[in-house]
Parts: sequence; C-alpha cells; structure tokens
Amino acid sequence: MVKIKELARMVGGVVIGDGDVAVGNISGWENATEKDITFAFDEEGLKKAAECKAPCVLAMESVEKYKKTILKVPNMKEAVTIIYNVLSGSKVHESTGVHPTALIAKTAKVAGTVSIGPNAVIGERAEIGERTIIKANSVIGENVRIGSMTVIEPNVTVYANSVIGNKVLIHAGVVIGADGFGFITKGDTIYKVPQLGKAVIEDNVEIGANSCVDRGTFADTVVGAGSKLDNEVQIAHNVKIGKNVLIAALTGIGGSATVGDNTMIGGLVGIADHVKIGRDVKIGGKTGVTGSVPDGTVVFGYPHREAAEIRKMHALFTLMVERFSGFKKFLRGIPK
Amino acid sequence: MVKIKELARMVGGVVIGDGDVAVGNISGWENATEKDITFAFDEEGLKKAAECKAPCVLAMESVEKYKKTILKVPNMKEAVTIIYNVLSGSKVHESTGVHPTALIAKTAKVAGTVSIGPNAVIGERAEIGERTIIKANSVIGENVRIGSMTVIEPNVTVYANSVIGNKVLIHAGVVIGADGFGFITKGDTIYKVPQLGKAVIEDNVEIGANSCVDRGTFADTVVGAGSKLDNEVQIAHNVKIGKNVLIAALTGIGGSATVGDNTMIGGLVGIADHVKIGRDVKIGGKTGVTGSVPDGTVVFGYPHREAAEIRKMHALFTLMVERFSGFKKFLRGIPK
Amino acid sequence: MVKIKELARMVGGVVIGDGDVAVGNISGWENATEKDITFAFDEEGLKKAAECKAPCVLAMESVEKYKKTILKVPNMKEAVTIIYNVLSGSKVHESTGVHPTALIAKTAKVAGTVSIGPNAVIGERAEIGERTIIKANSVIGENVRIGSMTVIEPNVTVYANSVIGNKVLIHAGVVIGADGFGFITKGDTIYKVPQLGKAVIEDNVEIGANSCVDRGTFADTVVGAGSKLDNEVQIAHNVKIGKNVLIAALTGIGGSATVGDNTMIGGLVGIADHVKIGRDVKIGGKTGVTGSVPDGTVVFGYPHREAAEIRKMHALFTLMVERFSGFKKFLRGIPK
Repeated sequence: MVKIKELARMVGGVVIGDGDVAVGNISGWENATEKDITFAFDEEGLKKAAECKAPCVLAMESVEKYKKTILKVPNMKEAVTIIYNVLSGSKVHESTGVHPTALIAKTAKVAGTVSIGPNAVIGERAEIGERTIIKANSVIGENVRIGSMTVIEPNVTVYANSVIGNKVLIHAGVVIGADGFGFITKGDTIYKVPQLGKAVIEDNVEIGANSCVDRGTFADTVVGAGSKLDNEVQIAHNVKIGKNVLIAALTGIGGSATVGDNTMIGGLVGIADHVKIGRDVKIGGKTGVTGSVPDGTVVFGYPHREAAEIRKMHALFTLMVERFSGFKKFLRGIPK
Repeated sequence: MVKIKELARMVGGVVIGDGDVAVGNISGWENATEKDITFAFDEEGLKKAAECKAPCVLAMESVEKYKKTILKVPNMKEAVTIIYNVLSGSKVHESTGVHPTALIAKTAKVAGTVSIGPNAVIGERAEIGERTIIKANSVIGENVRIGSMTVIEPNVTVYANSVIGNKVLIHAGVVIGADGFGFITKGDTIYKVPQLGKAVIEDNVEIGANSCVDRGTFADTVVGAGSKLDNEVQIAHNVKIGKNVLIAALTGIGGSATVGDNTMIGGLVGIADHVKIGRDVKIGGKTGVTGSVPDGTVVFGYPHREAAEIRKMHALFTLMVERFSGFKKFLRGIPK
Repeated sequence: MVKIKELARMVGGVVIGDGDVAVGNISGWENATEKDITFAFDEEGLKKAAECKAPCVLAMESVEKYKKTILKVPNMKEAVTIIYNVLSGSKVHESTGVHPTALIAKTAKVAGTVSIGPNAVIGERAEIGERTIIKANSVIGENVRIGSMTVIEPNVTVYANSVIGNKVLIHAGVVIGADGFGFITKGDTIYKVPQLGKAVIEDNVEIGANSCVDRGTFADTVVGAGSKLDNEVQIAHNVKIGKNVLIAALTGIGGSATVGDNTMIGGLVGIADHVKIGRDVKIGGKTGVTGSVPDGTVVFGYPHREAAEIRKMHALFTLMVERFSGFKKFLRGIPK
C-alpha cells in the first residue's frame, strides 16, 4: 500500500484532500475496491468515480471541488501508467496451485508457488521458477527453463530447450523455439538446415499474442531484457534483439539480423536477413530495411532511407503528379 | 426446407423440372443427401451430380437436358452463396452437449443448448448464450460474455471480460482481448500502460484464423456488427471498426484508429495509430495509411494516395525507367 | 549408422584419422553421444568437441592436428546440413504411443505406431498413418487424412476433411483448412460464400508456426510436395502452390493465385488474388505482386517490377533526392 501523497510526488501531481490515504491498486470505477485509486478522464468519469468504492481519484488538472480525495495531474495517461507500475511492481503473484488436469513430467522441477492451469503440459526436465503462472492449454517442452514471476497465457507453445527469464509476459498463442526457416537447395533437392540452437527470452520481456520467436540454427536467438513485442511479430533464427527494444505488430526480423538497444520498430516492417540495426534507431511502420542502419538514425520507406530523404522524395512525387501531363510530355521527349 | 421455385426467384434463375422439390441444404455431390441441392460448374460436375443423392442441381445457363430438376442461373458463385445463406440462415445449431473433459467454472452461466468440446475451459462468471458452440481446447476467460448461435473454433483464447455477440464465427487460433501494445519510455525505464478496457465483438462478425483483437486501454476495442476479418489480422487497442467492414489477411490496424461502415481493406495493409478512415472507403492491398481517409475514397500506395494519383505516379515511373539513360543524364545536369 | 569416409564423399570433405568410425546422428557438443558426429566452427568449438563424447568432429579446412577423427570440409553449414539430412533420412519415429488423456474418436483409424500427445483430439473418421506424431493439445477434425512419418507440433488445428501427406512437419499454432475469406456484398447484406473445398498439404511440406492454409471454396487449396512455408504465412482459398516452393514469413498469397515449382518468395510479400506466378521465379521481400509473373523472372517493389527496372528506378530516386532543390525548381516550372 502506498500513500496518495507519495504517488503525487512520483507523478508530479497535487493532492486535494487526505494525502495519507493508502492504496494498493489502480482500477476503473467498475471494479474498484476500498483499497484502490480510480481515475476519471472527464466529468462523466468523475460522477462514476464519486459513487464507486475507491477512496480517491486520479483526475485532470481542471477539477475543482470533489467529495473524495483527488490527485490532480497534468498528464492522465502517464500518471495512470506510473501509478500502475509502482503499485504492481511490489506485488507477487498469488499461487493458485496446480490444476488437477495439468500434466507435469516427473523429472520437471516446478517451484512450490507456481500456478499451472487446466490441461497445461510441462515436459521432462523443465524448470519453472517461483510464482510463475502457466495458463490453460499451454505446452512447455522438455528442458525448458522459465524464471520466476513470469506469466504464460493460454495456448502458448514453448519448444524444448528454450529459456525464458523472470517477469516475462507471454501472450496467448505465442510460439517460442520452433525451427528457423533454413533450407539449402541443391538441384532438385531441398535440404533442411538443422536447427540446433535455442530461443532465449530475457527478463522483463513482453511478447504479444500469436508472435513467434524461432530457435537458432547453431547459436541462439535472443530477445534482450526489457524488450516488448506486439502481436504477430516474427523473430527468425539467430536474431539478436537488444535491450528495451519496441517492435510493433506484424513485423518480421530476418535471420541473423541484430537490433541495438532502445530501438523502436513500427508495424509491418520487414528487416532483411543478416542486417545490423544500431541502437536508438527509429524505423517507421511498413519500412523495408534492406541494409544496415547506423545508431540513432530515423528511417522509413522501401528500400529504407533516412526520414529526411524520404520526405524529399515524396514531395517530389507530389509535384510530379500535380504536373502529370506536362511532366509526362517532358519525359517522352527524353531519348531512351 | 425451401422449394426450388422459391430459390429460383431469389437467385434470378429458371427451374427445369419439378419446382416443388424442397431442399434444406446445399452441398457438393460427394456429401449430398436426398434433402440437398447440389451444384455443377461444368460437364464433369453434371455427370457426378446426376449420380449423387441430391434431387436437384444448380447449374449454369447452358444446360439443356438433364435427368434431375435443374435450377439454371446466370452466376453460379453468387447463386450458390445466396442459397447457402438462405438455407443456413434458418438453421439452429444442434447441441452436442458438454464434453466430459470440458472444464466449466462453477459460477459460469452456460445455456442448456450450448455445445462445449473436449478440454475447453470456461472461466468464472462467464456467460454463454443459447446454441453457441465452443470447440476443443479453446479457453474462455473470466467474465467473458458470449451471445447465442456463435461458434468458437478450436485453440481460441478469449481473455477475461471480453464481449462477443450473437452469430459470431471465430476461427481457430484467434486471440481476443490480449493486452494492447502500450508503453511509455522515461529515460532507461519502459513503463507498461495498463490495459483496462475490453474487446467487444458485435453480432455476425467473422474473425479469421490466428487473428488478434486487443482489449482497449481505458475504453473498449470494438469490431462492429457484420464485419469480417480474414486470417492473421491485427486489431490494436481502442480501435473502432464500423459495421460490415471487410479486412483481408495480414493487415494491421494501429491503436485508436477508426474505420467507417462498409469500408473494404486489402491484405498486408498497415494503418497508423489514431488515423480516421471514413465509410465506403476502399484501401488496396499493401497500402500504408499514414493519415485520415475521407468517406468514399479509394486509396493505395505508401504513403497512401488516391488511386488516380498513384496510377499517374507509376505511369511516370515507367516512363523514367524506359528512358533511364537519358533521364539520368538530365538529372545529373541539375544543380544540387 | 554411416561411416565417416562415406559422409566425406557426400560433402566433398577429407578425413583425418579413422574413416571407418560410424555415426548415427549429428549434434552439438553439449548433447553429443558416442554414436554422434559433432561439429566445430572455431577454435573454441574444437576445444569443446575434444572433450565431448562424440568420436569425430566436422570442422573447417584450417584444422591441422586433433585428437579425434576430423572430417574437414570447405563449407561447414552445407556439410552439417547434408549430413543431418542423410542421417535423419533413414530414421523412423519411435512411437511413444497414445497418451491416456488423448481423445480419439471411435471411428478414427489410427495406425499402431502413431504417437499422440496429451489432450490431443482426433475427430470421427480421421485416418492417421504409420509413425506419425500428433503432439499435445492439437485438434484434428473429422475425416482428416494424415499420412505416415508426419509431425504435428502442439496447439495445431486441422479442420475437418483436410488432407496432409507423408513426412510433413507442421509447427505449433498452425491452422489448416479454416474457411476462406469469401463474401458477396449486395446492398446492405454481406453473404458468406460457402467454403466447401479442402486444404491439401502434400508430402515433405514444412509449415512454420502460426501459419494458415485455408480450405478451398469449391475446389481445393493445395501446397505442393516439398514446399516449405515459414512462420505466419497465409495461404488463401483455392491457391495452388507448386513443388519445392519456399515462402518466407508473414507473406500472404491471395485467393485462387497459383505459384509454380521451385519459386522462392521473400517475407512480407503480398500476392493479389487470381495472380499466376511462374516457376523458378524469385520475389524479393516486401514485394506487392499485382499481376502475373513469367517463369524465371526476378521481381520486387510495389507494384512489382523486374529487378533491373526497380534498381534503375531507385537509382533515379537517389539522384532526385541529391538534387532536391534544383529538381523541385525544375518541376515547379513545368505546366500542369
């Protein structure tokens, strides 16, 4: 439980009312309890918050009078986020135990505080750390190691030998550690390149629903600590994603590519095999990255170019289209 | 059961033979029964149809003589479709009951006519309406509300609090209600924005295999009545999809974007966050929509432009490439 | 078991030491047994290989002296791949039997050597051939036919009536045989086109995690023998993929398109409906194919063009951007 006046300090807010009220959770008015702080984005929200069980309300700067303690902040979304992270950061998952239909191999080592849902399957020699939660119908392969305080949502598949760190959140339908896409064609025969490496997901990573992280060919595929992947992202074999990298939905990172720390990648981006993306790079949505990108640059387009170039290019295209007839005539006059 | 002569009226067709024959189903010759109408696209099909159990055959205009009742139509695909919809529209799902391995929480409210497949898991306080079918190994979270006559195929995950309407069809591997991709970076720390809204799927929606619809951040994500999503579509948090919208495969709609009624979106399209797409819009495959699109427009390209502009642009590119040497020389002569 | 001197012949290598040593497997030093050949890419790898259980080591040309039998090769990755394929090609899957929690319909025909994992569900009249493996939580629909020596990883859904050949590998989360995306809009009503065809996966196909292959509308969707699909690939209804086709991740093939033998398709490619792609075609990553592509051509860009044209186009764009001010001035001087 944290006092409102302490939260105020963290979010740059002002308390109106009793700053010594302590809360353990932030939640919407519908589900709020006496131990929660709730939030109101507008007048309607304030009315509902007034009638719910929460003793105090996070609200925008403009609120004047109110019957509950108010924590007034300049930026609601940021304040909700920081308070949510502060309050949830100190919590541990309560164990709900192992469901009787879960199947845990005899040689698996499962900490006593782990929660395992219905029909989940834990393979031989798998290790699962304290307070980790494996939800219904997920399948954890042989020799998989999963840290503590991690959550695996339903219908996830983790292939044998994969390694998943602490405080990782893996959403439903994700596949970790499937074979990479490696084939060598000789004449009429396609040979499958053996996929012998692991998939390694470091601490504090979040992986969105139905995303895939393939195992490495000989070395490992790595998603670095703190990185966040949106839904339906594809990480190919041998890729090394740095720390605190953000990757939006439907983006694919090609085999053996590397991505530096703190880089942000938009949605539906394709990154070619073996490409080296620096740190603090920003890659716009739908970009096709065909070669290396230096630290700190902003790129988009296909093939990717620096943002300033792409803007110039499209400004020129706009002019061409506006002057379509004249420019067409001009081009036709040019010798081949 | 509907009489052939009535079907003829609906599809603009002509009956040759007994128009009073009544049918309850349309199906291929391989599976046809005495209560079915079957269909034949060509001579080969007519031969097979003649020997199957169906008493009447939907066929193309050219058929002259035939030993079964024929319903001759100008457009086979359209006629099959209309008849299929007419005949299936009046049907209700027959309940196969609850499989003994299904796990239904004690506080869940499941209508008596619901069918629940093996290993399906229904969470606490979930509500499932009449004649809905939940297939094998799907997981329905706590507080989920699902209407009647809906079908959830296998291996689907519906997160807690999601709302799914009537006559919805959700294909295998779909994930409804996972956390949206919301993070705020402050210095070295990435804060997770709490995802507290719901995912709402309205009546008559179809969602293709392995697609995802995220829950909202504070408000809800909504897929409007009658909309159809193809496979591997991604709908981010807070998106509002209107009614009767069609979205082809591998398309991603960015956070808080809105899409108006009757809009059609091609495959592999990316729509940026917060963009407003009007109604009756057509968006070509692979388009990258970077800003709002007014009602009734047709756009493609990246960044998106109106179709006429894009066509002009590519006509100019073609000319440039044809006159490559000459145009290159010209450009080199231009001062920087 | 194959002798090292025989392997040497197959990979164009040279044996230093005892060429009569026979091995049954290739594996990394960590897991190698006395019956394995291991491999070393560098000095570090050679040290570890020296201390592991494997009696012989595949290594690069530069190795001089070593205490185990060495098979020296010019191309490590290729040699590992060929040896892996040679050694695994002669193996059969050892049956682990049917897990007691697996649910097999009474009318299903399952060969005695099949392995079926926990919670897997096999529908009525399904047929599964010798030594095929169905892993945990996968769902096989009614009337599905699966050949022999095929592997279905966990959480896969195979819809009713689908056909899967021999030695197929289907990764986790894949959906085979879901409805195609077919709708006809008439006024305010969207009619669903019935999807009555099958999905057919021929022999030796590999399908990556979370990919989808839809059933056909009236005819079948076919993925030809030997073709390999990466993760999150989408194959729409009625598509015919030829033999030995390679398709990288997040690519979507539109309805009724055809792809010829030996064609290679990059990642995030979109292929429009009804398009005809020839054989031995190469399609670069992120390409948008809007029309037919003749045999043997190399295309990329959107809309796709032949590689040489695209290179010219982008060379011109680069010149334009370099001369931005001058070219802009020139364009402004052109009449509309």
